[in-house]
Amino acid sequence: MASIGNMWILEKNTPQQPGGLKQRVVSALLYCTGEMQQLHTHMQDKFFPLQLAECCLRGISRVILLNNPLSGALILAALLLESPWQALLGMLGLLASTCTAIILGQDCEEISTGLHGFNGMLVALLMGVFSSAGDWYWWLLLPVCLGGAATTFLSSSLAPVLGHWDLPVSVFPFNTVIVLYLACTGTSNPYFPNYPAQPPGAPASTNLTQLHVPQLLQGVVLGVGQIFACGTLGPSLLILGSVFLFSPILAVYALLGSGISTMAGLSMSVQHTFLYSGLSGFNGALGCMAVGVFYIFSWRTHLLSIANALLSAYTDIALSNLLGVVGLPASSWAATLTGTLVLLLTGKNLKEYRIPLEKVTSPEQNLRSHKQWSAANTNATDI
Amino acid sequence: MASIGNMWILEKNTPQQPGGLKQRVVSALLYCTGEMQQLHTHMQDKFFPLQLAECCLRGISRVILLNNPLSGALILAALLLESPWQALLGMLGLLASTCTAIILGQDCEEISTGLHGFNGMLVALLMGVFSSAGDWYWWLLLPVCLGGAATTFLSSSLAPVLGHWDLPVSVFPFNTVIVLYLACTGTSNPYFPNYPAQPPGAPASTNLTQLHVPQLLQGVVLGVGQIFACGTLGPSLLILGSVFLFSPILAVYALLGSGISTMAGLSMSVQHTFLYSGLSGFNGALGCMAVGVFYIFSWRTHLLSIANALLSAYTDIALSNLLGVVGLPASSWAATLTGTLVLLLTGKNLKEYRIPLEKVTSPEQNLRSHKQWSAANTNATDI
Amino acid sequence: MASIGNMWILEKNTPQQPGGLKQRVVSALLYCTGEMQQLHTHMQDKFFPLQLAECCLRGISRVILLNNPLSGALILAALLLESPWQALLGMLGLLASTCTAIILGQDCEEISTGLHGFNGMLVALLMGVFSSAGDWYWWLLLPVCLGGAATTFLSSSLAPVLGHWDLPVSVFPFNTVIVLYLACTGTSNPYFPNYPAQPPGAPASTNLTQLHVPQLLQGVVLGVGQIFACGTLGPSLLILGSVFLFSPILAVYALLGSGISTMAGLSMSVQHTFLYSGLSGFNGALGCMAVGVFYIFSWRTHLLSIANALLSAYTDIALSNLLGVVGLPASSWAATLTGTLVLLLTGKNLKEYRIPLEKVTSPEQNLRSHKQWSAANTNATDI
Repeated sequence: MASIGNMWILEKNTPQQPGGLKQRVVSALLYCTGEMQQLHTHMQDKFFPLQLAECCLRGISRVILLNNPLSGALILAALLLESPWQALLGMLGLLASTCTAIILGQDCEEISTGLHGFNGMLVALLMGVFSSAGDWYWWLLLPVCLGGAATTFLSSSLAPVLGHWDLPVSVFPFNTVIVLYLACTGTSNPYFPNYPAQPPGAPASTNLTQLHVPQLLQGVVLGVGQIFACGTLGPSLLILGSVFLFSPILAVYALLGSGISTMAGLSMSVQHTFLYSGLSGFNGALGCMAVGVFYIFSWRTHLLSIANALLSAYTDIALSNLLGVVGLPASSWAATLTGTLVLLLTGKNLKEYRIPLEKVTSPEQNLRSHKQWSAANTNATDI
Repeated sequence: MASIGNMWILEKNTPQQPGGLKQRVVSALLYCTGEMQQLHTHMQDKFFPLQLAECCLRGISRVILLNNPLSGALILAALLLESPWQALLGMLGLLASTCTAIILGQDCEEISTGLHGFNGMLVALLMGVFSSAGDWYWWLLLPVCLGGAATTFLSSSLAPVLGHWDLPVSVFPFNTVIVLYLACTGTSNPYFPNYPAQPPGAPASTNLTQLHVPQLLQGVVLGVGQIFACGTLGPSLLILGSVFLFSPILAVYALLGSGISTMAGLSMSVQHTFLYSGLSGFNGALGCMAVGVFYIFSWRTHLLSIANALLSAYTDIALSNLLGVVGLPASSWAATLTGTLVLLLTGKNLKEYRIPLEKVTSPEQNLRSHKQWSAANTNATDI
Repeated sequence: MASIGNMWILEKNTPQQPGGLKQRVVSALLYCTGEMQQLHTHMQDKFFPLQLAECCLRGISRVILLNNPLSGALILAALLLESPWQALLGMLGLLASTCTAIILGQDCEEISTGLHGFNGMLVALLMGVFSSAGDWYWWLLLPVCLGGAATTFLSSSLAPVLGHWDLPVSVFPFNTVIVLYLACTGTSNPYFPNYPAQPPGAPASTNLTQLHVPQLLQGVVLGVGQIFACGTLGPSLLILGSVFLFSPILAVYALLGSGISTMAGLSMSVQHTFLYSGLSGFNGALGCMAVGVFYIFSWRTHLLSIANALLSAYTDIALSNLLGVVGLPASSWAATLTGTLVLLLTGKNLKEYRIPLEKVTSPEQNLRSHKQWSAANTNATDI
């Protein structure tokens, strides 16, 4: 995996001369990968709807810790493939929370990089998934808009508290709002009925059947898709592709985390349906990716990402069992909590690899800046 | 509503010449409204019991975000009208927590403005309401005193944590202590039995009857009274009057918040008894008033107060459903949490209206200081 | 009690001349009591296994707020007496968390004084107690190691957050990890089954039998042992002895807190088995001791320790009832929370007695330093 990352960086570092089909393809690829900062600069004097579109696409990609409008477009395609109704809800939630951020007067730069949209999108997607009223139930647009707006309120409020320790707001607002929404409406609400969430802890009788290994492996891939509540293979692969476009390292981490998390599920003998559907995997994937994004890639942080995937996975099983008692899902509380704790680690063996919040980009870019910075430092010391 | 506020301010600004019955009435009215700072200064060299009485009356009014001894006296009258036993419990809780604050050596100025009493009073009132041992059950005085003292410990401890973000302690201690008390005693305790709290989410069958609009409107007014656990119309009107005495703007906000909150309850089809009794309304009323107190009055903050009332209302339904599973009430957790979050908002369109904690007075006074300050600033810029 | 403390200090202050059996015994006793700082300095150039042994023994004593390797050895003996399997688990958890701390690169001084081991030990002990798979079930070593490592992650992360208000991490990591472990595995897990926790609130019928006073008094002593999940008299007395070795004041506080806590349990009519087994007492004991450790001994802080023992006891009953609904124990959440709140108290009558976190030693030593410092201050003022 380290070699993939290095190769990527080398390619990026090669001087880009015009001419030759290969060069053009490479430079186009380079333009599309990473944060696409050039596009962002390019967009700043374009007219508003185009800017909003870029901002929304970045917002979609933010859900899975990316920051790339093309990845966002790929994910949108995956959602449309999975269910157009879901995609519509997601986009509406995204717009609602982005607009609320504009009205509240949040920082323009933050809005334009999609930081105020992804929580609203997740709330909208989960509202759609849990709704038992079926697709195209138009009344659902009402809570989707309100929920999207509520996430922006929450992120605006949580930012100064978490920012005190240089922590990101991440998906705390989404997790809070979706739990409150589901607790508020419940399963028998006449207007907005929901399916109850099932706890993963299985009664001993349901796991009598043999474990089906190919399905288990498919579950690992679906774990990446479940971050967007996608339970089918095609869209999950598209989402994985969108991660690869932003950063190959993160794509490997996503699969690794999902795999570790599925194994953790096995060790606690959760219901097989949870393993096969990827529901056991997505918290581990997020936990593993969080370390990849906020720490500079090295073998130490690699071990940390594995540890965090394990922690996320077990915490998710525990929280799902607890919240399942009252019929609520644990959504991504586990990955959010352990991811936040991991950023607070004080041990000196890890602290030097932690990237300050405002300098976080793609893992490859982080690695490159770090190397340049280290080299510069070494030279300075030599003289 | 803005015109009422302005009128009030104009009246306050008129020079007060002696002579003429009308002038005297106006100046007496002016003396009694707002924070009654003159009385407070006047009291400082008076002897201790009078000071304690003023401090306790201010403490009573603090429950509903006021700071006016006459409002406190009106509320005390309302409580006596509702139930003398409840009023006695409330006063005992208030005294217990105020005395604990004196013993702990809290800031004298804070104590004398009633900041260390209102949590104890609320705990005592709710203990009385939930007790299933009937009125005049004298053993209840024991937990009332202990609970009152515990709230002071909690507010003394939470102050440095919340103060770091310039947040008030508000009713966090009350909410914590009452939940712990009810969880500790439960419904079948031989010494202190309690009624279980009912979750507001209705089984589909109970809401078959037609909605009764006059009762619904009465419920909006009762929502203001329910802040003090008053469920009858007369005392609720008295309490509303006490709010009007401190600040007409807040009285409008209280009714507005209660109304919004009741509509939110309707939209989630909570049980009709909750709507009629005002239990659906009081969190919204508090949420709406909190914005009125801590933000300078303007159309932007007006919208914020409506948004916060909605948030409080839905959060209250969600928390009541959740805590109802274990038979606990959500008391005012919802309004306390959303009110605290609203004070943390970072959007630049709202931040300039936020009043620093130590400068908070009545909304009218805030508005006036802000206008004077803005005018002074404009003049300074002109020169 | 004050006289015991003073006597102790007087003894410590007497100049230590060589010669005479009595003097030698006294100086050996003095060497073994308190923090044993001399041994610690002595150990620093010794080879690693010896250092690790000292560090582990200190870690064992840290569980009960001590910092003395001999106390740790006594407690280890008590655990071996109670159950060798439990002692093994505890030592493994301690090692796992200490090694994780070394790998993470935590502060060496902190590791060598045992600050990164006690949470792991407690997690391991409680995993053993709740496991329904019986003794010598070797698979349990797996979660014990993982749980121990997880506590170190948590303490490393919580330290900067709590440190902001000069608060210790204390046993937050243990409490979090054990609740998550029990929620994760549950009672019917095929690999790691657990006993469900019983809520202390009794159905009215179970307390019909007469209260047995000698058993109640034994329960007070067992309350000290229950901090290490010891339910028999001999080990509990050994543990009490280990506390006495470190600080006689703390030993008195431990018994006092356990007694107060048992009386609080009586007043809430918890099940008699809880009172007799010491399960009602240990949170009060910890709460009382916490004040003794972090505040300078005086009659004011003595009252505070009693108040905190009461608060801990009632909070424990409340939390046990709440968590008991989902079959989880409240472990030492109550004492941890109230102990943390007590350290935040802002009242000026208590604040001067609070010892900054890095200066905390044994109560006797604290008292002595404080006296010397006060005397020096008075002299300085005199001149």
